[in-house]
Amino acid sequence: MSKGKLFLIPAPISINSPFGWDVKTLSIITEMRYFIVEEIRTARKLLRRVIPSFPIDECTFQILNEHTPPADIPTMLQPMMKGHDMGLMSEGGIPCIADPGAVLVWMAHCKNIQVIPLPGSSSIFLALAASGFNGQNFCFHGYLPVEKIARKQRIIELEQKAKHQTQIFIETPYRNISLLGSIMQYCQPTTNLCIASGLLSPNEFIKTMEIKQWKAFTPPIHRVPAVFLLGNVYLTI
Amino acid sequence: MSKGKLFLIPAPISINSPFGWDVKTLSIITEMRYFIVEEIRTARKLLRRVIPSFPIDECTFQILNEHTPPADIPTMLQPMMKGHDMGLMSEGGIPCIADPGAVLVWMAHCKNIQVIPLPGSSSIFLALAASGFNGQNFCFHGYLPVEKIARKQRIIELEQKAKHQTQIFIETPYRNISLLGSIMQYCQPTTNLCIASGLLSPNEFIKTMEIKQWKAFTPPIHRVPAVFLLGNVYLTI
Repeated sequence: MSKGKLFLIPAPISINSPFGWDVKTLSIITEMRYFIVEEIRTARKLLRRVIPSFPIDECTFQILNEHTPPADIPTMLQPMMKGHDMGLMSEGGIPCIADPGAVLVWMAHCKNIQVIPLPGSSSIFLALAASGFNGQNFCFHGYLPVEKIARKQRIIELEQKAKHQTQIFIETPYRNISLLGSIMQYCQPTTNLCIASGLLSPNEFIKTMEIKQWKAFTPPIHRVPAVFLLGNVYLTI
Repeated sequence: MSKGKLFLIPAPISINSPFGWDVKTLSIITEMRYFIVEEIRTARKLLRRVIPSFPIDECTFQILNEHTPPADIPTMLQPMMKGHDMGLMSEGGIPCIADPGAVLVWMAHCKNIQVIPLPGSSSIFLALAASGFNGQNFCFHGYLPVEKIARKQRIIELEQKAKHQTQIFIETPYRNISLLGSIMQYCQPTTNLCIASGLLSPNEFIKTMEIKQWKAFTPPIHRVPAVFLLGNVYLTI
């Protein structure tokens, strides 16, 4: 018996915006009955919204989030071992980027299960593209340390690296203003900062300026998902 | 007079696959008459394919590629200064990621022109998602050095970093097999390598294995666009 495949299903970056899957993705998902999701409610809602006739009550949903013990993951792959395709879906964007799905994908590779990413957007990449910073050499660091001294050291270190490599990081939305304050405090006036928030939403905001210009401007990032980038222009095109 | 906006238009990752723009993107592009593109022929072909009735002969296409002198770029922004929207399109995927568009976006920010990324896929991110490697902390390096000793040093350095941070790089397709040979030669047998090639094409290939397993297997990457990833599983979900 051949194994099922693991499809990585993109979710909307902004829940308040138009969203759809392309024709191929739609046809794959329409046949799918086994899902591994970060939150069941959001996943069911999205499936109902995009495919109104989808037989949600015939489907199995398993949860994979930051509280899932890694030991529970191998069992989740069982339907694929029995020949069923499965879909992995996160709360937003492409699964496995800044979310817990990667361990599942790793285990799928270990069991020789085919992994197929379906096309979709990621807020980190849209922010990078729209920043104007070097897109040939970049690093994503996830969250910076919360502790004050460690955070200060990290920001100064990233500012140095940003001269040659775009440095990308995020923050829990309610702490965005506080992170921006730290960046203002510790970075040099001529360092370039891009803030990209509310991507693909009606309130999308993207701006690249020097720190000294940011000091005269408060971006609309309070409690809004945002991507922060320190970088430089890539002059050698 | 208000300025026009700069839209970042996604192109297909694989030219041989189904591709479309979502409803919002379609409506924006349908009204657009000014384009900055990596290659005019590909851009016109894509516009004709997705929007058969598109008035291509009424449009202005400017070229921005690796041969464009940066001094020529400010002039390209002129239509936006006069109030016209413009679209930036690369040969594949999201513009500005591993291509020359970033300088234009940078100059747009300097002139206070609004930059709007339209949703689309990037082969680098799809490869990362499908690798099973740490998606919370990763670096993209573009091309590795071609010179033998520098390449060896770089591969060994990336292998070290890959223990804690996913390392992503690419190669000119006709050199893929040669790069794979170098990785085999210089990396440890238990180092984890993911190769993702022909993404979203009918010949898509994605596999994560240890170097010692790759030694017994030749992936179908000769003259096919491929992404290489060295990494590790992110165990602390």
